[in-house]
Amino acid sequence: MNLESKIRNIQDYPKPGIGFKDITTLLKDGEAFKQAIDTIVDNLKDKEIDYIVGPEARGFLLGAPVAYALGVGFVPIRKPGKLPAEKVSYEYELEYGTDIIEIHKDAIEEGKKVVLIDDLLATGGTIEAATKLVESLGGEVVSIQFLIELEFLNGKEKLKGYDIESIIKY
Amino acid sequence: MNLESKIRNIQDYPKPGIGFKDITTLLKDGEAFKQAIDTIVDNLKDKEIDYIVGPEARGFLLGAPVAYALGVGFVPIRKPGKLPAEKVSYEYELEYGTDIIEIHKDAIEEGKKVVLIDDLLATGGTIEAATKLVESLGGEVVSIQFLIELEFLNGKEKLKGYDIESIIKY
Repeated sequence: MNLESKIRNIQDYPKPGIGFKDITTLLKDGEAFKQAIDTIVDNLKDKEIDYIVGPEARGFLLGAPVAYALGVGFVPIRKPGKLPAEKVSYEYELEYGTDIIEIHKDAIEEGKKVVLIDDLLATGGTIEAATKLVESLGGEVVSIQFLIELEFLNGKEKLKGYDIESIIKY
Repeated sequence: MNLESKIRNIQDYPKPGIGFKDITTLLKDGEAFKQAIDTIVDNLKDKEIDYIVGPEARGFLLGAPVAYALGVGFVPIRKPGKLPAEKVSYEYELEYGTDIIEIHKDAIEEGKKVVLIDDLLATGGTIEAATKLVESLGGEVVSIQFLIELEFLNGKEKLKGYDIESIIKY
């Protein structure tokens, strides 16, 4: 199945001139969703993995099923104020202003091998911040997997040195 | 495995006197996470299901793997301003004030069979609102599955007539 045909383009969302890639049309198609998850699982088949880590909220939609399929744990990265136990935060630059993401301090132990999963690689700010959080806990990012990559935004520039794969590229 | 032993209790969070059930300690344990998902899948084995629906954000962590395991689609219910296409909203009462959740208008077709999945049944407000959204689109809620139920809050009262199951009860 051509997974790209299952992505809905929403023109001028959230701002004029931007074409938003809506993945909900892929998620609601059971066969397409399964194929997307199985593709990521297959991309990871030669790696030793302790945890899948995904940022809130769309990273949960892909990361949690991949963790389940691999039989490994899932660790959420969340927006401020959502995690109840002791945590570490990382602030990063957006086009305008800054954003903060957090992870539980005891979520990843020293030396554990981590795969980061998110729906979309755009400018790479969120995933770069996620690598910093994982590494601040002593985790090793062994791969980063995306459903979609917007190649024209050069997000890979921020993620040099990492193993990166995307299923659908624009 | 005793899944309850994998839940972390955070006393006085988010407010004094409240014991918060932290599921991240279960999610990060690959074996426990798999057992939780497989238990929900087993609960549903005799049902005909078209879609799994889960509310943002923790509902994604359980609902998406269950949808993957069953080979059916996943439909997200989100907070306002997160869904890019045409949507319907539902406003519901909280202890103080109100909250709003949304679903894409074309997410569920008339007559489709839906299972709602969330991490926790507390007072039941969010899941009751989710049933209203699904039913407003013509979907039929054939089951509601939770990881945890706080029985002393009587959330089931709001959900009379539905098939409800919870893995861990307090």
